[in-house]
Amino acid sequence: MTQTISGPQQIPATVDIRDDEQATVDTAELGQLLLGRWAHVRRVARELVGRPELHKIEGLTHHDHRRRCLDQLHYLVEQKAVHRAFPTAFGGDGDHGGNVAGFEELVVADPSLQIKAGVQWGLFGSAVMHLGTEKHHEAWLPGIMNMEIPGCFAMTETGHGSDVASIATTATFDPATDEFVIHTPFRAAWKDYIGNGAIDGRAAVVFAQLITNGVNHGVHGLYVELRNEDGTFKPGVGGEDDGIKGGLNGIDNGRLHFTDVRVPRTNLLNRYGDVAPDGSYSSPIASPGRRFFTMLGTLVQGRVSLDGAAVAASKLALTAAITYSTQRRQFNASSDLREEVLMDYQRHQRRLLPRLAATYAAAFAHEELLEKLDDVFSGDHDTDEDRQDLETLAAAFKPLSTWLALDTLQECREATGGQGFLIENRFASLRADLDVYVTFEGDNNVLLQLVAKRLLTDYAKEFKGVDFGVLARYAVSQAAGRTLHRSGLRRVAQTVADSGSGKKSAIALRDEDTQHELLTDRVQSRVAELAAELRGAKGKSQEESAALFNEHQNELIEVAHAHAELLQWEAFTRGLQQIKDPGTREILTRLRDLFGLCLIEKDLAWFLMNGRLSSQRARTLDGYINRLLAKIRPHALDLVEAFGYGPEHVRSAIAGGAEQQRQEEAVEYARRHRASGDAPIDEKTLLARSATERKARKAGRARAKR
Amino acid sequence: MTQTISGPQQIPATVDIRDDEQATVDTAELGQLLLGRWAHVRRVARELVGRPELHKIEGLTHHDHRRRCLDQLHYLVEQKAVHRAFPTAFGGDGDHGGNVAGFEELVVADPSLQIKAGVQWGLFGSAVMHLGTEKHHEAWLPGIMNMEIPGCFAMTETGHGSDVASIATTATFDPATDEFVIHTPFRAAWKDYIGNGAIDGRAAVVFAQLITNGVNHGVHGLYVELRNEDGTFKPGVGGEDDGIKGGLNGIDNGRLHFTDVRVPRTNLLNRYGDVAPDGSYSSPIASPGRRFFTMLGTLVQGRVSLDGAAVAASKLALTAAITYSTQRRQFNASSDLREEVLMDYQRHQRRLLPRLAATYAAAFAHEELLEKLDDVFSGDHDTDEDRQDLETLAAAFKPLSTWLALDTLQECREATGGQGFLIENRFASLRADLDVYVTFEGDNNVLLQLVAKRLLTDYAKEFKGVDFGVLARYAVSQAAGRTLHRSGLRRVAQTVADSGSGKKSAIALRDEDTQHELLTDRVQSRVAELAAELRGAKGKSQEESAALFNEHQNELIEVAHAHAELLQWEAFTRGLQQIKDPGTREILTRLRDLFGLCLIEKDLAWFLMNGRLSSQRARTLDGYINRLLAKIRPHALDLVEAFGYGPEHVRSAIAGGAEQQRQEEAVEYARRHRASGDAPIDEKTLLARSATERKARKAGRARAKR
Repeated sequence: MTQTISGPQQIPATVDIRDDEQATVDTAELGQLLLGRWAHVRRVARELVGRPELHKIEGLTHHDHRRRCLDQLHYLVEQKAVHRAFPTAFGGDGDHGGNVAGFEELVVADPSLQIKAGVQWGLFGSAVMHLGTEKHHEAWLPGIMNMEIPGCFAMTETGHGSDVASIATTATFDPATDEFVIHTPFRAAWKDYIGNGAIDGRAAVVFAQLITNGVNHGVHGLYVELRNEDGTFKPGVGGEDDGIKGGLNGIDNGRLHFTDVRVPRTNLLNRYGDVAPDGSYSSPIASPGRRFFTMLGTLVQGRVSLDGAAVAASKLALTAAITYSTQRRQFNASSDLREEVLMDYQRHQRRLLPRLAATYAAAFAHEELLEKLDDVFSGDHDTDEDRQDLETLAAAFKPLSTWLALDTLQECREATGGQGFLIENRFASLRADLDVYVTFEGDNNVLLQLVAKRLLTDYAKEFKGVDFGVLARYAVSQAAGRTLHRSGLRRVAQTVADSGSGKKSAIALRDEDTQHELLTDRVQSRVAELAAELRGAKGKSQEESAALFNEHQNELIEVAHAHAELLQWEAFTRGLQQIKDPGTREILTRLRDLFGLCLIEKDLAWFLMNGRLSSQRARTLDGYINRLLAKIRPHALDLVEAFGYGPEHVRSAIAGGAEQQRQEEAVEYARRHRASGDAPIDEKTLLARSATERKARKAGRARAKR
Repeated sequence: MTQTISGPQQIPATVDIRDDEQATVDTAELGQLLLGRWAHVRRVARELVGRPELHKIEGLTHHDHRRRCLDQLHYLVEQKAVHRAFPTAFGGDGDHGGNVAGFEELVVADPSLQIKAGVQWGLFGSAVMHLGTEKHHEAWLPGIMNMEIPGCFAMTETGHGSDVASIATTATFDPATDEFVIHTPFRAAWKDYIGNGAIDGRAAVVFAQLITNGVNHGVHGLYVELRNEDGTFKPGVGGEDDGIKGGLNGIDNGRLHFTDVRVPRTNLLNRYGDVAPDGSYSSPIASPGRRFFTMLGTLVQGRVSLDGAAVAASKLALTAAITYSTQRRQFNASSDLREEVLMDYQRHQRRLLPRLAATYAAAFAHEELLEKLDDVFSGDHDTDEDRQDLETLAAAFKPLSTWLALDTLQECREATGGQGFLIENRFASLRADLDVYVTFEGDNNVLLQLVAKRLLTDYAKEFKGVDFGVLARYAVSQAAGRTLHRSGLRRVAQTVADSGSGKKSAIALRDEDTQHELLTDRVQSRVAELAAELRGAKGKSQEESAALFNEHQNELIEVAHAHAELLQWEAFTRGLQQIKDPGTREILTRLRDLFGLCLIEKDLAWFLMNGRLSSQRARTLDGYINRLLAKIRPHALDLVEAFGYGPEHVRSAIAGGAEQQRQEEAVEYARRHRASGDAPIDEKTLLARSATERKARKAGRARAKR
């Protein structure tokens, strides 16, 4: 059962954080750990993305930016940088984890490049590879790999994005000609936001409702040629340009529509569903629902790589902002001689260090996700359950890391003031490009609902075979538990127990097990509560259950969010346990504590309302976090250095030392100026001096009178 | 004293929100109220900003965008749209409130246009008008007003932004030639981020440390010519382009530096400080500190207009996103026939409606701020205290409204998915342009610290003349009060009192006085607590007090934030009290409740930790807010319609009804298709049917056997 954390009213500031001023970060060891299992791939990829040829040039028109990105894709082919995931038979490495690890580093050069490469090889190429079979591979993979066939992944429609199962494009089999007829029935069924769709795409995997013999077998992918050599559309194909976007303007997103476009029957990517010449349909997966999710599941690496790219962007932003913040000075509160370094301001620490901690958490979580991906795609651990776990993890981590990236980039931009707004410092540019990461490849809110449903399913599984009455009673006992927490009875008891060991209670919040318990309890209790509330849906009409579900939609998403945070916390904890250097481990532990305590602080009301933390203990949290910040602050530079990004990656003007140089020049000027004796006195000093003189003169006059 | 809010464990969902399905919004009355005191000016301004000539064209290079904005400034002159604030003697109206009201609407056309106009007339022109005297007005105001002299406001330096008093550019008086020598001593003293600085500025008000007779009298503004007719720099002046920015690329921000540039003595804008030919300095304001703040204070309208522009941007975003969300459908949870409208999803309501409420709050607060500005600048109420109040209000509201705008624009962009990312829908474009509003004209975090210091000063004033022992005792009694809250003793008593009137306690949270009391108490208690903690600074060294202050910096900013929220809540409440139509008033009251309760929810942990809300009551808040959302949802469209922005202002493709048309076309297609009998059956139905058939056949076989 959950322990309630309580304690004396004041925690002495001096005992709760161990005083280890000697500890330093071994950036080499930490850096190696962060590079993860595919360190070798990341090193090669980072050398590549450090090259100017691949860097985003700011201020290009979207036309020029698109052309540049297209050229860069050819460059990547030349550099043999894009083949890791493809089968060895076609010159690839069959290395799925390494492929994503290398691919996501492209964001460092230009997010447009990452996503355009992702469209070509991660979506279009992967669809042919995973949904197609041998003859498809032979026919198209070489051209896809070497960019002879720039292509599209034509799934989303104007009318359906999140609900992909409901797309309206049809692929109807015509046995008379042994062809599929691809057709767009109305405007909402136009393919939309399709990368390579506006200009470059010669072919596409088009997703459509497969209809044969009068039966709709659901969404399937078909290989469809779009354009002629000269770039004009093939007969029946049409489309338009999506135009300028909030970012990622190196990619030519566009709309596509099809008017009775005929493709050979064999263009159906038929690994999970096939149609015979007589029009009969067959599939290795009987359930249409499961078949659909299996097809989609082969594309999970898209989400995984967005998770990794988002983490990389956060790392870049923090490297630049923290470097600058240790050089930039403003206001001289503590001394007349020297202004304060931004990083020494408490508020500044509050703004940057929790995000640094969250970035570490997301980085460790991402590494585990990559390993899971590799396990599944390599076939090492490829059960249905493994695939489900992989998808749930991706659906949990991608929302958190992509939102974190936007939040971090924005905070870094604001924390560096006017400098942060200049495009040369990259915060605004990266933020604009990464904006769409939170809604594409699965809208974050929709993904978190999938996670929540999985949590509810798992919860229900625990009660499988148990009759409904037991479940009802369990829910009741949960509610009773809550009442116990709520009533404060448990708290009172715990306060007494706590008082037996003042020290133990004082360090309770920094205790790893306590943090874990608090974060775990939050998820478990809320899932149980939700399950009890949604249990009412049984036996109700579709409309009524939908309404009940909707009444808890916000809570569902919050629970999934809490779950993902717990998983990140666990990954962070497992990650730091691999560190051998005691100083590094100690500092990373503090950073993990900061991460955990900020999570608890963010949801503090929940812990209070439900009796998990006493008001007394909760009141110490803010001060404790502030002291943690001050303790981590001296290591901030080391902690970003360990990310391992050099100037060729960060490319932020303010992180290049110019600020330091300007500060030194100003100080040197003041010193020379003062030494030469020509420095003007300031008015305040003058006024103070004349006031003293007046007083002295007055005193003199008074003396003279006497 | 503060009432602790407590009550029974469950609030019946049916009694706490009055059932007034009949209430509708009188959009005309509400619209008129929102237009405020300067409705006539806003109407004229909105007609103007609806014209295509002034609209931002997306995708221009920053060079072309700059040229367009410059041309637009000339267009504004032709349309006589820029003279409201200037003296009647020069063809202006001397109408300060109206000037800002009209000016801030420019953001609707293009934020670059608003800010470039703000640089020319609101900063450069205002500095000449407010800091200069008659001969300056005669010499330069006509040329400034008619754009013959495009100019700069050259205050910020690369090395000093927030701490403007420490800028390093010098203006040293040389009595030999009766000139000031403007000089940039080192790189950090370059003027930076200066609008019109890179290309267009012919002249500038340059802020510099005024040195005469060996004394530095602090920062003063001087009129300095920058460029010749052909655009080349005058001798001694140099600079460079700030290049591309995260947004606002219609403005040519640049850096400027001065090498012994000489200007006549009379170029000193001498309203608040003058130098005689003999070099002697005089000022109507004796204190250098007060003089500096008085000079800066004349420029407060910049902050006020950013506040207004931010509110306008939020209104535009919500109009587009809410309109689209009432048309867009996705997933068919409740029915097989029709998908759900986005706006009916609880999460979607949670995302958009609290921001709608906050935008109303910010709008009412802004209107009061405008009136305050007009009172001061018209001279109607122009005491030192009035000016201080105006500055504190501006410093409180500008951070909240500019952050709200970014947050709202982003949420609208995400809530509209891929559509939201297309530049044609404007969310991403407006967000990029408004990004810098949170750090320029006073960094939001710095402004909130000013507010906090004012709160502490006011608090200290209450104890003026009281000896220190009393203050100490007061602080102790505060702490005791906290302990009382904390211990729950008060809560227990209150629970008993509550139980006397079940209904009263059930509606306690929607009660206006309760909300007000909770929000007020939060500010007062936290200020008192902070004051007690900072009291320790007395008698300490500069370094020690700075450290003590820094240890509470985050809390200071949080308190100021809470104070600004309270002021917004009060303005919202006063605003809705002016509404005559009962239905409109009822709905606006709900929206205000939503605003207030979301504020309380956001800081719920504070109210819990300090015994202001019982856990039982706090647990009802989430559900209560969800029910409020559902009640407000039917009026969402009316509430954005009342903002009064037409299609020529919103200019968001998704708000134009295309989505509705697409949906109808899809439904119509399905209907026709089904009627014609050629609709394919879906596989699930087929499988279900064949399962039934198998079962029937089996049953038939069984029957046959019998």
